[in-house]
Amino acid sequence: MKKLINNPRYVVEEMIEGYVLAHPNHVRQLSENARSIVTAKETREGKVGVLIGGGSGHEPAFMGYVGDGMADGVAVGNIFASPPPDPILEATKVIDKGEGVVYIYGNYAGDLMNFSMAAELADLESGIKVGSVIVTDDVASAPKDEMEKRRGIAGEFFVTKAAGAAADKGFGFDDVVRIAQKANDSMRTMGVGLTPCSLPQTGKPSFELEENEMEIGLGHHGEPGLEKGELQPADQVVDRLVRDIFADMPIESGEKVAVLVNGLGSTTRMELYIMFRRVKHLLNEKGIVIHRSYVGDYSTSLEMGGASITIMKLDDELAELVDHPADCAMYTQK
Amino acid sequence: MKKLINNPRYVVEEMIEGYVLAHPNHVRQLSENARSIVTAKETREGKVGVLIGGGSGHEPAFMGYVGDGMADGVAVGNIFASPPPDPILEATKVIDKGEGVVYIYGNYAGDLMNFSMAAELADLESGIKVGSVIVTDDVASAPKDEMEKRRGIAGEFFVTKAAGAAADKGFGFDDVVRIAQKANDSMRTMGVGLTPCSLPQTGKPSFELEENEMEIGLGHHGEPGLEKGELQPADQVVDRLVRDIFADMPIESGEKVAVLVNGLGSTTRMELYIMFRRVKHLLNEKGIVIHRSYVGDYSTSLEMGGASITIMKLDDELAELVDHPADCAMYTQK
Repeated sequence: MKKLINNPRYVVEEMIEGYVLAHPNHVRQLSENARSIVTAKETREGKVGVLIGGGSGHEPAFMGYVGDGMADGVAVGNIFASPPPDPILEATKVIDKGEGVVYIYGNYAGDLMNFSMAAELADLESGIKVGSVIVTDDVASAPKDEMEKRRGIAGEFFVTKAAGAAADKGFGFDDVVRIAQKANDSMRTMGVGLTPCSLPQTGKPSFELEENEMEIGLGHHGEPGLEKGELQPADQVVDRLVRDIFADMPIESGEKVAVLVNGLGSTTRMELYIMFRRVKHLLNEKGIVIHRSYVGDYSTSLEMGGASITIMKLDDELAELVDHPADCAMYTQK
Repeated sequence: MKKLINNPRYVVEEMIEGYVLAHPNHVRQLSENARSIVTAKETREGKVGVLIGGGSGHEPAFMGYVGDGMADGVAVGNIFASPPPDPILEATKVIDKGEGVVYIYGNYAGDLMNFSMAAELADLESGIKVGSVIVTDDVASAPKDEMEKRRGIAGEFFVTKAAGAAADKGFGFDDVVRIAQKANDSMRTMGVGLTPCSLPQTGKPSFELEENEMEIGLGHHGEPGLEKGELQPADQVVDRLVRDIFADMPIESGEKVAVLVNGLGSTTRMELYIMFRRVKHLLNEKGIVIHRSYVGDYSTSLEMGGASITIMKLDDELAELVDHPADCAMYTQK
């Protein structure tokens, strides 16, 4: 598969270099570690820090979400691979303003290990208090009685949004942790894959699907989903994804939600809006109110084809946090 | 090629429906014509209107650029096809606040015919003054002594940005026209295509390139470019594109520019930032100052693979307009 890159070994370094050069008013790279990026703004003393991170290849996640009202720092891993403890630790030291740092990351073995190690080192070396919220929104990745096995996918955007807004509004450490956990517990994601991506190092497709085949529940690194089948019209695909979400997270008429229809990379906005339209119809039928909608590429898998739907239930507190403004290099909300 | 759509005949209608349902605070569809979308906000009397439009399939262009500091309305055509005069005319009537409306559109036969006809009708039927600025940023589409034949591509974003900001700041009709024209005359775009898109109606690739082949100067509907050749490393591709831009638009050390590295659909942000990095190095070498950078999918060709680079020279007036805030459903700048 063709890519506009140079040496495949240095794609992440070159991407980070381009990113920091393009947005000097938003982000800066730490001299202590080239894989640590923090907000370019002065962060006020006493603000709880929010740190995100994970593998590369999901842009704008994660590095695109550093900025006002979102994360204060990010640790950038290799493609589809967790960052090691070092960049996490260095970013933690810089963004801590005396009230601790909250880590938000997806439920993957490498991330769990490395973020936990960084948290321990932050405490040992610098006495920084660290809280961790593990994102587990992917319904398809494990059954309901094994929630702790579920992976994190596009819904991490909502957790970062809610926690970042809370921290920006001056919430204390325990409350930022509570908000991040509530955001995670209040939402579910279901995705569908159509076409694979390829890793720059190998150029080989990450999985195989027949022409005219789709895979429901495909993971965002190409992990196997629930089932493969013939590609259906968009409305039927959406019906299936939303049905699985509500089977897992019952919802009552009159409840308020935020919706994210996320593209995996090569899926057009046209398709995403066609999908959103059906989501809106289904929620209307159930008497559910969409408080705010996000449609676009929020968490990709390189150039994978497909999409995911995330629905987050909102109480008044979460609704206010979702509405809070944000200003990042890859995402701005007024 | 697989797509998440329903009936291919209704993709544009369903996309518009989803778009308007997703962003009721930003846009509304006119009851007079389903292909006319205008800002949902109250526009103040005396503001010069800015109207954009063109074929669908380029999202976020064009409908994503309706909002504060950008366009007041858009006319939405079928995929890769100009909107007819009717939706242009209806949007014109609604966004005119007594001081006239400025049309901004790409240099394509269908658009020229339909926007000109709408302008005549707006004058005849409602006495609305209309100005038109035709975007012609694609260096590859015609030689320098036939500028009037050049097509408009991603640079239309900059023309809309500058004119939209000018109108928002209260510039008069003649000045908004002047600014749009100056923005167009001050910039050039060069693109490269790697992989085709397919029209929903046919499912067939829009052009053919060999595995490991690229096409310099490919148009954003798949129009033939300057030459095909073996895919080069990103840095060499950027060197070529930037060289062609500066051969066409000489620039001096110390000048200020805005840069847009635009993805055509399925090209990852990783690749776009790697390309931006090289643009920045080249401009540094020449002593050219990047005042503001845009990296992402600003004007796509469905799921086409490839990218374009736009460089706009900025005098102080254009720089201030580029910095002006904007708030659209698909693009927000603080």
